[in-house]
Amino acid sequence: MIRHTVAFTLKHAPGSLQEKAFLRDAKAALEKIPGVEKFEQLKQVSKKNDFRFGFSMEFESQAAYDGYNKHPKHVKFVKERWALEVQKFLEIDYEAL
Amino acid sequence: MIRHTVAFTLKHAPGSLQEKAFLRDAKAALEKIPGVEKFEQLKQVSKKNDFRFGFSMEFESQAAYDGYNKHPKHVKFVKERWALEVQKFLEIDYEAL
Repeated sequence: MIRHTVAFTLKHAPGSLQEKAFLRDAKAALEKIPGVEKFEQLKQVSKKNDFRFGFSMEFESQAAYDGYNKHPKHVKFVKERWALEVQKFLEIDYEAL
Repeated sequence: MIRHTVAFTLKHAPGSLQEKAFLRDAKAALEKIPGVEKFEQLKQVSKKNDFRFGFSMEFESQAAYDGYNKHPKHVKFVKERWALEVQKFLEIDYEAL
């Protein structure tokens, strides 16, 4: 199992319609891509970093993760939304020890 | 629910006995502290950052999280092990959106 997470901050004003739209459209684009399990949209609440949100999802295998990365819906979302609307982000991926 | 995560890298050589001891002792010190749920020790596998490990745990409430932070076993572990053996770390905490 690989747990893929990304913490991020948007360019949009907190609480704005643009922020809501980004989160809604991200869920619509990504959650149903084959291989994606336990898709979560999260609020980042630690004061020790300045990311505002997080996504978390799990894949059964590296092949499933690769399939997600290459999936047209993911590629399109990254190009048309993520690259334009995200200010900063950090990907952290975990496997069981 | 608050999911508390910390990604980190140790000063110890990868695969060393010191590394194994740190992980073993962290689990022994932290997993049974009241309020800690779903304690996980994880391997960080993304090439997009250079953290090597992660811990993840969940708390039912901020009060449970505060209780963990103040618990003598946690305080002792942070002072005697974490502060001395961890090279760098990043705490990221999530709540449901």
